[in-house]
Amino acid sequence: MHPPMRLRHRLFILSIAAAALATVPAAAQDVARYRPAADSLIRAATADSAAWNRIAELVDRFGPRFSGTPELERAIDWVLAQMRADGLENVHAEPVMVPRWVRGRESATLLAPRETELHMLGLGGSIGTPAEGIEAEVLVVGSFDELQRRAAEARGRIVLFDVPFTSYGETVQYRGTGAIAAARAGAVASLIRSVGPFGMQTPHTGGMRYADSVRQIPAAALSMEDAMMLRRMQERGDRPRVRLRMEAHTLPDAPSRNVVAEIRGRELPDEVVVIGGHIDSWDVSPGAMDDAGGCVAAWEAVRLMKVLGLRPRRTIRVVLWTNEENGLRGGNAYRDAHRAEIANHVLAIESDAGVFAPRGFGFTGTDAAFEVLRQIGALLAPIGADSVTRGGGGADIGPIMALGVPGMGLEVDGSRYFWYHHTSADTPDKLDPRDVARSVAAMAVMAYVAAEMPERIPFGTAPGNRE
Amino acid sequence: MHPPMRLRHRLFILSIAAAALATVPAAAQDVARYRPAADSLIRAATADSAAWNRIAELVDRFGPRFSGTPELERAIDWVLAQMRADGLENVHAEPVMVPRWVRGRESATLLAPRETELHMLGLGGSIGTPAEGIEAEVLVVGSFDELQRRAAEARGRIVLFDVPFTSYGETVQYRGTGAIAAARAGAVASLIRSVGPFGMQTPHTGGMRYADSVRQIPAAALSMEDAMMLRRMQERGDRPRVRLRMEAHTLPDAPSRNVVAEIRGRELPDEVVVIGGHIDSWDVSPGAMDDAGGCVAAWEAVRLMKVLGLRPRRTIRVVLWTNEENGLRGGNAYRDAHRAEIANHVLAIESDAGVFAPRGFGFTGTDAAFEVLRQIGALLAPIGADSVTRGGGGADIGPIMALGVPGMGLEVDGSRYFWYHHTSADTPDKLDPRDVARSVAAMAVMAYVAAEMPERIPFGTAPGNRE
Repeated sequence: MHPPMRLRHRLFILSIAAAALATVPAAAQDVARYRPAADSLIRAATADSAAWNRIAELVDRFGPRFSGTPELERAIDWVLAQMRADGLENVHAEPVMVPRWVRGRESATLLAPRETELHMLGLGGSIGTPAEGIEAEVLVVGSFDELQRRAAEARGRIVLFDVPFTSYGETVQYRGTGAIAAARAGAVASLIRSVGPFGMQTPHTGGMRYADSVRQIPAAALSMEDAMMLRRMQERGDRPRVRLRMEAHTLPDAPSRNVVAEIRGRELPDEVVVIGGHIDSWDVSPGAMDDAGGCVAAWEAVRLMKVLGLRPRRTIRVVLWTNEENGLRGGNAYRDAHRAEIANHVLAIESDAGVFAPRGFGFTGTDAAFEVLRQIGALLAPIGADSVTRGGGGADIGPIMALGVPGMGLEVDGSRYFWYHHTSADTPDKLDPRDVARSVAAMAVMAYVAAEMPERIPFGTAPGNRE
Repeated sequence: MHPPMRLRHRLFILSIAAAALATVPAAAQDVARYRPAADSLIRAATADSAAWNRIAELVDRFGPRFSGTPELERAIDWVLAQMRADGLENVHAEPVMVPRWVRGRESATLLAPRETELHMLGLGGSIGTPAEGIEAEVLVVGSFDELQRRAAEARGRIVLFDVPFTSYGETVQYRGTGAIAAARAGAVASLIRSVGPFGMQTPHTGGMRYADSVRQIPAAALSMEDAMMLRRMQERGDRPRVRLRMEAHTLPDAPSRNVVAEIRGRELPDEVVVIGGHIDSWDVSPGAMDDAGGCVAAWEAVRLMKVLGLRPRRTIRVVLWTNEENGLRGGNAYRDAHRAEIANHVLAIESDAGVFAPRGFGFTGTDAAFEVLRQIGALLAPIGADSVTRGGGGADIGPIMALGVPGMGLEVDGSRYFWYHHTSADTPDKLDPRDVARSVAAMAVMAYVAAEMPERIPFGTAPGNRE
């Protein structure tokens, strides 16, 4: 319990609040009138485990939903049918051609100083090895800089980037471009320590790329444990030797679809708040948090509005993008298909950081919009999700944000997100049904009020842009 | 900071302490004189990462050390050579015949409602399946009671015990005897949810047994994720169907060895304090914490006494038992080989609960001995390992404890022990070098003072037994 605030202090705070209100649009001052609707959405979302159950059913029924596979398309068919059964409106799919990378069989065998199978996953987009594999001594380095210093030792060897996880943005550079750096140094293959802070012999896959001017070499991730073991072996003076076998290859693009469903606006149906996540996952991952959770959070948000009879002034459109993981073709296709109505996109909200305990949203847009959205965010204080901060969005809404659509990303307790990211362990049990329910509530309240309030959110993504 | 204690209260406590001292052997009152030796052992143990490095080297060089395999025997040869190089005394191996269970290839394939490979490990001691496998519908139950209630449904099916982890002692019953209960109900194979509170698609192996009068059926563990998925499928009305293939079989017993090394007592060399862990691990597990850590904690404890010139009054004998995991043949063989000198065993201390942050020891022995050991334990307050509680020991010292040798087990922060136990993820990175060093210090101080103090620890394992 806090001690009572002294009067002078209280008056001071009131005067600051009044000054702040004077600088924001009039609409923001009225946000409190949406509290009853917000509270009913929160109550409905947190009344049961419906959202968690839906994630589990999607994941259990179809397993990994990788671009170009029948499993992804069957999952999309099922979602479309369920959305129609839920009474969502304008439910349809929009065609997208997606890349079709095929992992095939793969292995990394330690041959010396002792023989054992390593825990590995090829990286998405990698080429394969010859059928007999690539066998070479391993050079373990801890950074691109160290590789440069030891470039003479890398020629003809397999380079292993054993880089401890710091932040995803930093560490993922080795997954993305390690094969380029290794090939430049004359290496025959590139390995990384899986990108994550903790593992249980759990390799993480993920995208990698080649550079036009640099020879393509196969690229794979080892479990963090195996990467650290190879480093220790090297430090003891052993010369670890590995045989890498990968059948990885790329087939012609294949058809997939974005899923679209709406609750149509009652007054301004052509103005749209887009909310969603991505329906695809990596081939080895059930993708419960990445991103079945985001899909279901958006879908359930709109379903609850239907259940509660809350039809907002503007249209809320659920979009479940395809191919976020290895191509972003869904996000690009949505932009292209909806280019004519981009200016009518009031706001885009993506959930792709997991549906753990929600903290609020990160926002990219104008200062004026930010002030409005912060006030909407305050309606989420009852579930601790009232933080609205600068910076944020999502990969799939990136293409329309680039055209000026204000963008938000649901932000959650991310402390374990990268434990499971792009692994076989991204399963429903990692999510707490109560956290999922609160994530649904956060998406629902933010989308509903942004679609309902009379004034639209100012367009544009530059902070200083006030229209 | 605590408020100053009132005088009356202090006097009261002093009078209790005086009464307690009057009931314990005179020796206990002198334990404080060993503080300089204890402090020097603690300082030496915590000065570097030597113990952690030794665990990592043992694990990296030889990998899993399963009973009956050349890898275990090579690891034993290496340890013997290293112990001799360290200047330990009377270093030798003692022969033990051990069981030879062979896993072979194995798989559990979900065939319906969709096809996918499940994450599984056969349980140690299980029989295999026919070459074509066993294919059947799965009946998921949550307890032995539920199986009894649904026994009619179990006939001809594969029973899966999907039992959430509570305590090891409770949950491990399903691993140990699940195949017996399932066979009694007419099942064709027995599966369990892996015994552990957390996993990342990580199956845990471990021992299982059959009953003479009950048909033997194959037994395996699924990852907790897969077990929960099968349960959800059943709850949705799906009828999961699995094909289990296991080549598991048992070969004739094979030779192995207990490792023995000593620091000989300077006055009473025939009186012995035994300290150790088990050198074997499961076939799929590097066994860094279970139990390379315990082996190294005991080994390093004695090495540091040599380094510091601390030769105790009695002999301290390091024993690294073989075959703890699937037979306990090492512990039994030690008892048999040393039966004539059992009465000269002053104390036995095992470390087999991991070498995480040490808390102290659990003890099984007389009340008089307990009082002495509690006072020795107080010397470990500088590293927070001064708790000595009632109850404890270790599997390998169980056979000599049954003959009256007082027994202790090192107790540590066990919050993650069962995350890694009997899995491929039991690797050195899971251990903090500082915790390992403190575990060494705890083993060293307890063993040294018990071996050094003039009066020996009273013999016997019954609390009331005061000789």
